[in-house]
Amino acid sequence: MSKLTDVPKRILIGRALRSDRLGETLLPKRIALPVFASDPLSSVAYAPGEVLLVLSIAGVSAYQYSPWIAAAVVVLMFTVVASYRQNVHAYPSGGGDYEVANTNLGPKAGLTVASALLVDYVLTVAVSISSGVENLGSAWHFVIEHKVFSAMIMILLLTVMNLRGVKESGKLFAIPTYVFVAGVFLMIAWGAWRGIVLDESMYAPTADLEIRPEHQGIAGFALVFLLLRAFSSGCAALTGVEAISNGVPAFRKPKSRNAASTLLLMGALAVTMFCGIIGLALATDVRMAEQPAQDLLRDGVPVGDSYVQDPVISQVAEAVFGHGSILFMILAAGTALVLFLAANTAYNGFPLLGSILAQDRYLPRQLHTRGDRLAFSNGIVLLAGAAMLLVWLYDADSTKLIQLYIVGVFVSFTLSQIGMVRHWNRHLAAERDPAARRRMIRSRAINAFGATFTGLVLVVVLATKFTHGAWVALLGMVIFYGTMTAIRKHYDRVSREIAAAEGPSDDSVRPSRVHSIVLVSKVHKPTLRALAFAKLTRSDTLEALSINVDPAETKALREEWERRGINVPLKILDSPYREITRPVIEYVKGLRTENPRDAVSVYIPEYVVGRWYEHVLHNQSALRLKGRLLFTPGVMVTSVPYQLESSELAKRRARKRADWNAPGAVRRGLVDTPRKAGDRTGK
Amino acid sequence: MSKLTDVPKRILIGRALRSDRLGETLLPKRIALPVFASDPLSSVAYAPGEVLLVLSIAGVSAYQYSPWIAAAVVVLMFTVVASYRQNVHAYPSGGGDYEVANTNLGPKAGLTVASALLVDYVLTVAVSISSGVENLGSAWHFVIEHKVFSAMIMILLLTVMNLRGVKESGKLFAIPTYVFVAGVFLMIAWGAWRGIVLDESMYAPTADLEIRPEHQGIAGFALVFLLLRAFSSGCAALTGVEAISNGVPAFRKPKSRNAASTLLLMGALAVTMFCGIIGLALATDVRMAEQPAQDLLRDGVPVGDSYVQDPVISQVAEAVFGHGSILFMILAAGTALVLFLAANTAYNGFPLLGSILAQDRYLPRQLHTRGDRLAFSNGIVLLAGAAMLLVWLYDADSTKLIQLYIVGVFVSFTLSQIGMVRHWNRHLAAERDPAARRRMIRSRAINAFGATFTGLVLVVVLATKFTHGAWVALLGMVIFYGTMTAIRKHYDRVSREIAAAEGPSDDSVRPSRVHSIVLVSKVHKPTLRALAFAKLTRSDTLEALSINVDPAETKALREEWERRGINVPLKILDSPYREITRPVIEYVKGLRTENPRDAVSVYIPEYVVGRWYEHVLHNQSALRLKGRLLFTPGVMVTSVPYQLESSELAKRRARKRADWNAPGAVRRGLVDTPRKAGDRTGK
Repeated sequence: MSKLTDVPKRILIGRALRSDRLGETLLPKRIALPVFASDPLSSVAYAPGEVLLVLSIAGVSAYQYSPWIAAAVVVLMFTVVASYRQNVHAYPSGGGDYEVANTNLGPKAGLTVASALLVDYVLTVAVSISSGVENLGSAWHFVIEHKVFSAMIMILLLTVMNLRGVKESGKLFAIPTYVFVAGVFLMIAWGAWRGIVLDESMYAPTADLEIRPEHQGIAGFALVFLLLRAFSSGCAALTGVEAISNGVPAFRKPKSRNAASTLLLMGALAVTMFCGIIGLALATDVRMAEQPAQDLLRDGVPVGDSYVQDPVISQVAEAVFGHGSILFMILAAGTALVLFLAANTAYNGFPLLGSILAQDRYLPRQLHTRGDRLAFSNGIVLLAGAAMLLVWLYDADSTKLIQLYIVGVFVSFTLSQIGMVRHWNRHLAAERDPAARRRMIRSRAINAFGATFTGLVLVVVLATKFTHGAWVALLGMVIFYGTMTAIRKHYDRVSREIAAAEGPSDDSVRPSRVHSIVLVSKVHKPTLRALAFAKLTRSDTLEALSINVDPAETKALREEWERRGINVPLKILDSPYREITRPVIEYVKGLRTENPRDAVSVYIPEYVVGRWYEHVLHNQSALRLKGRLLFTPGVMVTSVPYQLESSELAKRRARKRADWNAPGAVRRGLVDTPRKAGDRTGK
Repeated sequence: MSKLTDVPKRILIGRALRSDRLGETLLPKRIALPVFASDPLSSVAYAPGEVLLVLSIAGVSAYQYSPWIAAAVVVLMFTVVASYRQNVHAYPSGGGDYEVANTNLGPKAGLTVASALLVDYVLTVAVSISSGVENLGSAWHFVIEHKVFSAMIMILLLTVMNLRGVKESGKLFAIPTYVFVAGVFLMIAWGAWRGIVLDESMYAPTADLEIRPEHQGIAGFALVFLLLRAFSSGCAALTGVEAISNGVPAFRKPKSRNAASTLLLMGALAVTMFCGIIGLALATDVRMAEQPAQDLLRDGVPVGDSYVQDPVISQVAEAVFGHGSILFMILAAGTALVLFLAANTAYNGFPLLGSILAQDRYLPRQLHTRGDRLAFSNGIVLLAGAAMLLVWLYDADSTKLIQLYIVGVFVSFTLSQIGMVRHWNRHLAAERDPAARRRMIRSRAINAFGATFTGLVLVVVLATKFTHGAWVALLGMVIFYGTMTAIRKHYDRVSREIAAAEGPSDDSVRPSRVHSIVLVSKVHKPTLRALAFAKLTRSDTLEALSINVDPAETKALREEWERRGINVPLKILDSPYREITRPVIEYVKGLRTENPRDAVSVYIPEYVVGRWYEHVLHNQSALRLKGRLLFTPGVMVTSVPYQLESSELAKRRARKRADWNAPGAVRRGLVDTPRKAGDRTGK
């Protein structure tokens, strides 16, 4: 047995190898930022527009309030960032909102957050793709004319990419994200320069339009409500902020510090861009409306259904850089690209969260084991399907989709912040060192404030958006929640059912003797191998069993048996109905009823083939028989494989699959980097 | 072991039971006739019409030739019947055309016949259903207005019926068939009486129409060709004659004699009806055309697309019984019903032939074992799919479909007759008794004549119908032929590959020692059972193996192991990538490389569950692991099942499935009667 010890060693080498690479794989801040921030940063592409859209209900005069709303968003952003900086320090393991809520507020809260996140991932895909298509459309009109179609294509593209397991690198994210950020900042700077220093007046393509307000002279509570609604639309800018807190392990040391500062940097960038765009929108007289077709007037006449309302960012870009200018084009492309990347992040988050939930037995067990292509594929397909459904239902209209979006985000924000407060309380109870206590109290304060603020926003969002679509998101959450509790219940019931009684081992499951049966159809290598193996594992009785479906064949078998002098008794069962399964089952049952405390071990020679159609041609009866045998208690079924030449193909395929890269490896830090896995099998 | 002897006895009881029932189940002639003849008899519902259709190309004057064509069909019919009476005597086992051709002319001929028959089964469904719908439509117009739809529905109905496994009785066939036959004879008699004795003049609904001939004053070779074409259309009346020769075992003793006389009776009925209908058609001035829309004129004007051409049988019935008369209705319904039954026969023939072909390894092996619902279902679905495709392509137009039909029939006729000639030659070589020789020589003469005649017809059919659609049928045959040869090739290659070397047993497959490994995740009943079983089958080394995907769980496992003092060494493999499959595979490979001549036996505890969704929640990783393990040589995988409570459900389901009736039991005689199977599990 000592010879076997080097096997674990080999696996240890695998791990050693890993730690060598450590430095190389961990993300420096300059890469981590784009990798994690593509989602939150990209959301400034649509958030400002949403604010103006809502305000436009009260007419263009209401645009004057937009700076205040922007301000509110900024405050909220910094609150959230500050709060999550605490998470990052408290859970360097990369505990996402789910883990925080789960550990601090108990499973129900955890599951609520999980459901919210799952719904959000779906919406991230739907919203980002739709908005991406709209931005691309502002530069390339074909796309906007076939909006839903283009969106579907994009989703399919991402899906296939992720199913095939793209080997991502930080760069993949870095370039477009930086192009986008740089573009927006250049736009803001250039716009400010032209507007303020050169005092030129810039006009958005929609500057000459009027807005017909849906409600004239809106005021009092109605106005407040409208402003709140505009604010909660603006909150779309905060989606995806929590991403970094899941990815701490992917950062270079000191992980938490780096993650925290990246978080801060991201927040700063986001708000600057957000405000900048709103400012430019006001300066260039951008005009947007919820129903542009009838509420936007050119010379007093509604623009009509043919009118396409470009996203605010592209309108501003047009005003600043000039229509069709190269910079305009670059920014449009960059925006679209970064939005598609944002969608891609959901493709990684969804299965990852899935595997964590599976670990807690809220989802099928096998989703837990990583590097498991099948499990991931299921998650990815589910995600894509849901997103496509939404895109189709809401004809890829980002404005409509955003109504569904923000609820989930703030559910998880709020719960995770409350969780953090609990977390600090717990630690404070234990901690004695005054300095540490002071830090903790400070953190708790921040989280408490975050919890209250995000909680308020959640209420606002629910109040202002419920009828506008938020209920769909809530419904989705309820469905996820229900399914997951059901699954958990099932697993719990089973584990109770199979829990082993106390004592060294309960007697009920310990048979006294074992009869071995080898199923035989012809005398060929697979059969001989099965016989050899059966002999090898010594049992109390051993016999070969054959079903007589064809007298001629059976006769031939008997003679061959004699001729070769195989020293195993051959029993033939007649099968007047040319069946295989039932006679065997009945025979085995017979054995069992005669000596109930004995076990029966059935050896089935199995062909191992390589091509799918070969499966149709082999083993079918064997498999069906096996399926039925497993239902008869006290029976074990042994498949003795015989590898046909063609099986080599399948082997190679399997090896290829093994080197497959689970998507989002970069974002997930090292533990699961499948490239390593590839190397390991490499030796 | 002696205690086990009663198991075969129990199965023998099953057989005994069978022979008791023998008398009761075998078919008396009066039932056998409808059971087997619904297909050939029903074909007189469309065959006469086809003759007139073709003749009408040369104008109504050409109708004068129809009696001659009828005569030719009669001669042919009796030739075929006479020939098949020889088959019936020579192959009382119920050797169908395939078997005859296969044994006497070799596999290639056999396979050709098989392909032809398979195509024919598809066409039987398509043609009979379409014609049935047309006949139903003559009485109930809604049907004809939604022809394709109704036809599809009928096919689906039959498919579902057969998938669910209808328990047929002879009566099911007897009543409609006899109603149909009686109706037609009554019509002929009544028509003759009115026409000849009462000298009334009867007029078909189309009597007042003119036919615009496609070719004026056709003569010489063209005329001959036309007549030949009309004749080969008339041959449609012969389809399904061979059915009886497959069903000899289902007859009462003396089987062959009864079968032969039933065959003769069927032939007589068919030709009488065929001629009677043609005669009445002429007497009542039925007018039909291939393109009725433009070639049928009322007062010189084409009747146009709205015109629906009723089948000749219903036109005649209308003329004789009077439009809308009760008798007319009954006959129409009876005709439709018998046609649907004819289609149903294909649903039995197709899978039956399939199982014979599977026995000769031209089709997947599992199709051979009978009472195997899955196998049957596949065959049935394939048949239905193909038929629906044809019905859809040829918009349920029986005339168009019949063009495809007859080729296959005569391919099998001809080959099987040639085969019979060979058969007699072989026997004559052996036979010495002059009396017997005389009989054989007579039989050979009949078969020889049959072969020549059917051969000629085949040539005619090909010549006259190839461009009209026969090529489609031939294409279908080629496809079947190709697929089946490919499958056979594969099986042969494999059986060569796995052929056991000579000598008592070849050493390459006999390992020296066996290492047993029990896969363990937690300590629960399934695991304990697996351990118990593994211990029971004594192997050289035994160890428990667990994969460390989650340190906490692993630690718990180790402690539990200690606490319970399980006397099996527990080995833990680290899995840095949270995989299960690869570490195990590598460990096993490791064992193998160290002692290549040893075998490794892996025990996997498996949950046996009852509901489909539970499968999603259990065993997934186990199954995948097993799949991969089978590729590593020298490994056997043992599933130790643990039946969860829910598995009871599946057990019950399986039992229900077991009592399922394969369709067409009646027609197939006793060997496969699944009702018996049901009884047997009953005890």
